[in-house]
Amino acid sequence: MHPHYPHHGHIDGDIVIIGFGSVGRGLLPLIERHFTYDLKRLHVIEPSGEHASFLAQRGIHHLQVALTPDNYRAVLAPLLGPGGFCVHVSVDTASLALMRLARECGALYIDTVVEPWAGFYFDFTQPASARTNYALREAVRAEARTRPGGPTAVNCCGANPGLVSWLLKEALLRLAADLGRPQAAVPAQRADWASLMRRLGVKGVHIAERDTQSAAEARPLGTFVNTWSVDGFLAEAFQPAELGWGTHERWFPPGAQRHAEGCRAAIYLDTPGLLTKAHTWTPAGGPQYGFLVTHHEAIAIADYYTVGDAVQPEYRPTCHYAYHPCDAAVLSLHETLGSGRVQERTKILGEHEILWGADDLGVLLYGHARNALWYGSRLTIAQARELAPYQNATGLQVTSAVLAGMAWALANPRAGIVETDEMDHEFCLRVQRPYLGSIEAHYTAWTPIATRWAQFQEEIDDADPWQFKNVLAT
Amino acid sequence: MHPHYPHHGHIDGDIVIIGFGSVGRGLLPLIERHFTYDLKRLHVIEPSGEHASFLAQRGIHHLQVALTPDNYRAVLAPLLGPGGFCVHVSVDTASLALMRLARECGALYIDTVVEPWAGFYFDFTQPASARTNYALREAVRAEARTRPGGPTAVNCCGANPGLVSWLLKEALLRLAADLGRPQAAVPAQRADWASLMRRLGVKGVHIAERDTQSAAEARPLGTFVNTWSVDGFLAEAFQPAELGWGTHERWFPPGAQRHAEGCRAAIYLDTPGLLTKAHTWTPAGGPQYGFLVTHHEAIAIADYYTVGDAVQPEYRPTCHYAYHPCDAAVLSLHETLGSGRVQERTKILGEHEILWGADDLGVLLYGHARNALWYGSRLTIAQARELAPYQNATGLQVTSAVLAGMAWALANPRAGIVETDEMDHEFCLRVQRPYLGSIEAHYTAWTPIATRWAQFQEEIDDADPWQFKNVLAT
Repeated sequence: MHPHYPHHGHIDGDIVIIGFGSVGRGLLPLIERHFTYDLKRLHVIEPSGEHASFLAQRGIHHLQVALTPDNYRAVLAPLLGPGGFCVHVSVDTASLALMRLARECGALYIDTVVEPWAGFYFDFTQPASARTNYALREAVRAEARTRPGGPTAVNCCGANPGLVSWLLKEALLRLAADLGRPQAAVPAQRADWASLMRRLGVKGVHIAERDTQSAAEARPLGTFVNTWSVDGFLAEAFQPAELGWGTHERWFPPGAQRHAEGCRAAIYLDTPGLLTKAHTWTPAGGPQYGFLVTHHEAIAIADYYTVGDAVQPEYRPTCHYAYHPCDAAVLSLHETLGSGRVQERTKILGEHEILWGADDLGVLLYGHARNALWYGSRLTIAQARELAPYQNATGLQVTSAVLAGMAWALANPRAGIVETDEMDHEFCLRVQRPYLGSIEAHYTAWTPIATRWAQFQEEIDDADPWQFKNVLAT
Repeated sequence: MHPHYPHHGHIDGDIVIIGFGSVGRGLLPLIERHFTYDLKRLHVIEPSGEHASFLAQRGIHHLQVALTPDNYRAVLAPLLGPGGFCVHVSVDTASLALMRLARECGALYIDTVVEPWAGFYFDFTQPASARTNYALREAVRAEARTRPGGPTAVNCCGANPGLVSWLLKEALLRLAADLGRPQAAVPAQRADWASLMRRLGVKGVHIAERDTQSAAEARPLGTFVNTWSVDGFLAEAFQPAELGWGTHERWFPPGAQRHAEGCRAAIYLDTPGLLTKAHTWTPAGGPQYGFLVTHHEAIAIADYYTVGDAVQPEYRPTCHYAYHPCDAAVLSLHETLGSGRVQERTKILGEHEILWGADDLGVLLYGHARNALWYGSRLTIAQARELAPYQNATGLQVTSAVLAGMAWALANPRAGIVETDEMDHEFCLRVQRPYLGSIEAHYTAWTPIATRWAQFQEEIDDADPWQFKNVLAT
């Protein structure tokens, strides 16, 4: 353990990090800083040999293998045991299968997304409903109901999903105070949180992100450039757009579908996220487009804050992602769509290739008496470089959330399968806050109908600016 | 006259250059190189004082005044006379008014667009039909019919409209040869050209442009960055999308409108160009999006190549612009649309700020036995810097077309009001070719239905890939 960093726990058993992409590489130095463990029991499973020397030079055991439905038990079972930790930060490796196995073996578990096995996202023989995050999440929720308690498995604990759920709780307390209704105590239960959001008059929540990180070099033609996993982004961008569907909505998007089973908190549109734009607002961009890319938290938050029955709720917020990726990724998407094919070359901008910019990731709570409140992390590339190695601002917002989730799991080792909404947001933000740059609250008078073009013929609901009809860009 | 540059004519009278933006500044050195004239009779009318020193140091008379409907006669009439040349390269100054005045005074005239007086493009009290380029062009065509002959006024002679009409004629001759039908003689009349295009089986023409010029500095937030006039681009991008409407089309865009008067060659859509994307192809980009921004040549070319009656033609090609501006402009448009307002700051990338890239501007002739032929100018920024000062590649493609148009007018001083389709393309390209980089012909097997996403639900006409229904991106 480094002397200057707070100690967040000791890991007795084996630590198995699955995946060593941009998240795995950025997470490693945070694990080294904040946990104690036996180096001989640290394993990285990563099929590419790209980082083999890096790992060998640090004495880290490297299993160069790709996990599949056929081999994952044989590879992992010998490594997973009580006191150990399975850290899943890979693509194409099913979260549910790994989570089950880890818990069977008595190990703690964490991931950043409900990842399916390879091929799921692009299996267009499946109906759209089967390719939704709703379906993926329901499978994990069913597992949590079927096998309650037991070793803690933290599901979907990155920047978003993850951090944003903790920020949302802070934002609600801040909004309550600013509306003259400071809460004597932090709500204790899910129902109390949902009731608070309802009482504050929040109609919905955007996960409103603006990534302004800009590279020294202009994007070359034929290359998909992003600040994080291109595979991860494209997978979700090609899924149907999904959103938690609030009780205040009086218009239903043509072609959208509800679900017949499960929590019923979300709907999906008949367009993929990369073709679906939302009008949103961030401190960096002001009024701006965000891609309505499906994300676990859109469903989880709408579900968590539901008051009453799932099918006929008394209250539920609308919730969705509204993501303005870095400019190079916007251009890359434009190229992908225009060319009708995904670029063969991909590039993740490293922390030393980025000249300037920041990732502003927050929650925009709207529809209440102060109109809208953006509350989130504004982390510049300069700050990120200062704070931790091997990652840009986007990466650090993710890896520090994994750090916080791991710390929470070590402190709560028998909590069963949990989502970040169900965790102690104060505990988690205490761990994560040093890595988030500036946490800021911004009220805005902007609404989705405040900045429309007179010359575009659009159907607008003037009576309620925050209807999803107005948020969805046409 | 410089010793190394061919002499293209002597201008006896006063030369009045109206506007000294990116085109005016780039045109000046070409005028200096290729024409002889009396420096004391060279005038630049430009309201901004930005370039006052530059002009004074070169002994050029600078009138720092903005032309308006009220003052233009008083300002210009004393300067315009037989043997003189009125060169209109400004925005917000009506081409028709200036053209009339120049011809009344006996002076030659040239412009690059049918520009209206200030306010026209953004007067949303006017119906969409009144804000079309069709309406603007019809007014000039009516003037040409009402007052035939007389001093030459070259209308719409820039890169496009302009150069592309000359490239199209070369491309038709090239296609004829490549299809085994070389033409013994260059067609002499409009009807011969239209008949040739028809016999070659050309269904339509994209003005297919890809600007890859990229700056050393990333685009700052809140700034509209382009490689040419931001005002000019935004004006046309907010106009209704317009296209020449071909006889092979069997689907009619919902919401589109025909015109009840005039040449009938074009229709307009119910979306502005910046919201209208076309699937097109360029050598640099391969399959790519192009914004279907209204442009004079889309109408003029469809009109020029019509066989038979205007209302019920036997043959007419579809024709439209499909423009992929530089990446910074794509991002700027994304920001404009997302923020609901035009950026307060604008920037035109100077030739020394651009690190690399080229402007590929050509015509894509499609639907014939070889599928599609792109024929055009590929001019890199490095070549542009080498060839002439004060402009990037985009600028040089425009200014060298103005040079060619001026040379043609001096050689044909009593041709009346003409469009570039009506001019001698061989003469004009002879003048312009040294400034166009590489002129290339590229055949492609790509069609608009070759690169669609299986996962997007789209109505496709599989039986005829080149239907506009397939070209229009959804």
